[in-house]
Amino acid sequence: MEQKWDTTVLVGQSGGPTAAINASLVGVWEAAYRLGARVVGMRNGIEGFLAGATVDLDAIVSDPLQAELLRHTPASFLGSCRYKLPDPEDDATPYQELFSRFEALGAGAVLYIGGNDSMDTIEKLARYGESAGSPIRFMGVAKTIDNDLMGTDHTPGYGSAAKFVATSVHELRRDSDTYFMKSVTVVEIMGRDAGWLTAAAALAGAPGQDGPDLFLLPEAPVSLDDIVSRVDKLFKTQNTVIIAASEGARTPTGEPLYQDESVGVDAFGHAAAQSGLCRYLAGVIKERLGVKTRAVELSTLQRCAAHLASATDLAEAATLGSTSLQAAASGATGMLSVIHRISDDPYAVRYGLKAISDVANGVRTIPRSWITPDGMGLTQVFLDYARPLIAGEVHPIFVDGVPWYPRLAKE
Amino acid sequence: MEQKWDTTVLVGQSGGPTAAINASLVGVWEAAYRLGARVVGMRNGIEGFLAGATVDLDAIVSDPLQAELLRHTPASFLGSCRYKLPDPEDDATPYQELFSRFEALGAGAVLYIGGNDSMDTIEKLARYGESAGSPIRFMGVAKTIDNDLMGTDHTPGYGSAAKFVATSVHELRRDSDTYFMKSVTVVEIMGRDAGWLTAAAALAGAPGQDGPDLFLLPEAPVSLDDIVSRVDKLFKTQNTVIIAASEGARTPTGEPLYQDESVGVDAFGHAAAQSGLCRYLAGVIKERLGVKTRAVELSTLQRCAAHLASATDLAEAATLGSTSLQAAASGATGMLSVIHRISDDPYAVRYGLKAISDVANGVRTIPRSWITPDGMGLTQVFLDYARPLIAGEVHPIFVDGVPWYPRLAKE
Repeated sequence: MEQKWDTTVLVGQSGGPTAAINASLVGVWEAAYRLGARVVGMRNGIEGFLAGATVDLDAIVSDPLQAELLRHTPASFLGSCRYKLPDPEDDATPYQELFSRFEALGAGAVLYIGGNDSMDTIEKLARYGESAGSPIRFMGVAKTIDNDLMGTDHTPGYGSAAKFVATSVHELRRDSDTYFMKSVTVVEIMGRDAGWLTAAAALAGAPGQDGPDLFLLPEAPVSLDDIVSRVDKLFKTQNTVIIAASEGARTPTGEPLYQDESVGVDAFGHAAAQSGLCRYLAGVIKERLGVKTRAVELSTLQRCAAHLASATDLAEAATLGSTSLQAAASGATGMLSVIHRISDDPYAVRYGLKAISDVANGVRTIPRSWITPDGMGLTQVFLDYARPLIAGEVHPIFVDGVPWYPRLAKE
Repeated sequence: MEQKWDTTVLVGQSGGPTAAINASLVGVWEAAYRLGARVVGMRNGIEGFLAGATVDLDAIVSDPLQAELLRHTPASFLGSCRYKLPDPEDDATPYQELFSRFEALGAGAVLYIGGNDSMDTIEKLARYGESAGSPIRFMGVAKTIDNDLMGTDHTPGYGSAAKFVATSVHELRRDSDTYFMKSVTVVEIMGRDAGWLTAAAALAGAPGQDGPDLFLLPEAPVSLDDIVSRVDKLFKTQNTVIIAASEGARTPTGEPLYQDESVGVDAFGHAAAQSGLCRYLAGVIKERLGVKTRAVELSTLQRCAAHLASATDLAEAATLGSTSLQAAASGATGMLSVIHRISDDPYAVRYGLKAISDVANGVRTIPRSWITPDGMGLTQVFLDYARPLIAGEVHPIFVDGVPWYPRLAKE
């Protein structure tokens, strides 16, 4: 007989949106539905929930058409937040409020879909719950385009963002090759601490052909002089040069290659809005080499371009949502579902569980051996790792010429 | 009996690339093939042709699979140039060289696919040819994402760029609506002299819902104060504001809203690389209203995102290529094929011819009556005009997770 769970599942989304975060939401709902559990959504994560904002997800997702549309919709359907809980040992006040609300809803499980910072939140909730003797189970569902979460082969959201980056760089390369003149295009790609998404530009094709000619990654610091002299050398054999530059690119002394004076710091202490690197580099190269340069910042587009999502990514995102909920039903708490790779070719994975306390607040970077010795290229090992993650296209429904994405009614 | 034309057709591409420019190339080839004519491509337009660079297009496009792939490939397959011919009355030298090369190839027709500046080129060639008594026929095939060519209802390339703009703004809106906080996103869109492409963002949806809340168009100058006070007013009823800003947006005194100090001037005397407006506006609004702001420059992506091309646009681009070649076969010269609209709904067009001398170097802007009286919105008339142009999706072939676009072998 199939397992049943007569409870309420509370689910929230947090942190920066991705193209796959709603596929995970649908995955959570589907597993809960199979168990007979009700699903309530937190509106704008923990922050909105503290203000009493919830959504009856059963009323929406039980319609198979709405579920399918939601699966292909970018950006957190439930809304997001960047809300940092204090350590429960230092200040229990928000926890008392949260747990009283959890209990009022009859919640048996709380699932939180998010990145590193969201895992920090769920880990603290689990810790407080354990100390308070609460039976509620707290599970994380990973998502981040940055792919920098510890303990998992890769994270949902990365494959779709990587597919957008690779496709865009491929198309930009064609555009830049159009003119018979020397030019440099600097493409700035997200990733504060890890270069995974910048490296994904290598999936566009080989250097000098459809892919970038050089990569600037946080994992492999290079000096401005080395960058300029490499570009100069490339011009001996080709007309156009494409640079894929991570927003977190660094110099050998550990400084950012470019630091915007106006940068602020967000609630988690991260430097916010690091941008301008592409324009800075384009300016320096133009001045030193006297060639035409262009700066292209892929900006927020890279995390919300659901029309170009990876089918593999969306499927895995839904599965991770389902396996997290199933694990909660089986008694797990303070954990998240992760992906282990069995093989690159044929691409095969299995799903597992990790204690969030083992992965929260760490940053997984590209192994140095996956980057070429000069620090400016990617090896075949990286390509073999990343290629399967962008496999498969989706075909969202277009209405009146633009994708149709369902949205919650405003409160 | 079907008309035959035993000649060589010479075809080139010029100016900025679009997602539809190769569909026009395929259209020219198909019409020539039906007439029994040979087709030779100029490499990098007139400039490359003057250096003797040509391509045997028959060898490539006669393969139906290659033709179909080429139809969906962004950026000029033949390469492009920005080469301004002198007035033939002032300096006949380049014309003598060009016509001697035309004759050596046995060219009966020269077709040039491009925007305003390319039409200038073909008009001068036709003028020189006429004065020299040449039998060669010169025809233009319009393309420009700017949609600002005179004498035609719209231009190939616009629909695809408009579909990318509308889809991207739609996805950016979802992303910005994710957080429960006041924010302004300024999206900078191409268009030096006309706001057609910026206006296309309105196709994303209604203001306050999926579309931008306000538009900054060259056709309707507004002051910085008016922009800021409008945003401030919008915050009384909504949390997130999206501004679609044309790179050519102007103040009531006719000055650019933002003028980059480092802007240069291209061969045609246009201010080149006007960018930075979105970051400037985001900075001003943040300072004056104290809200989070983001700047997104759609950059070159908007003209090369062939994966998101409009099926209507690609079909019309091919038809214009074919009708231009057919007109040449029937004796026309110094003309271009244009589109006349029969009705918006059902969408219906017919194709016609215009003398290039009547359209070259003019700029077609959005009629002021299609813009709301306050200058910051679009009317239903504009939406009815533009909506059919983004209709229909294409599904390019993806290989290894990225679109497959054929390219010419390097010389």
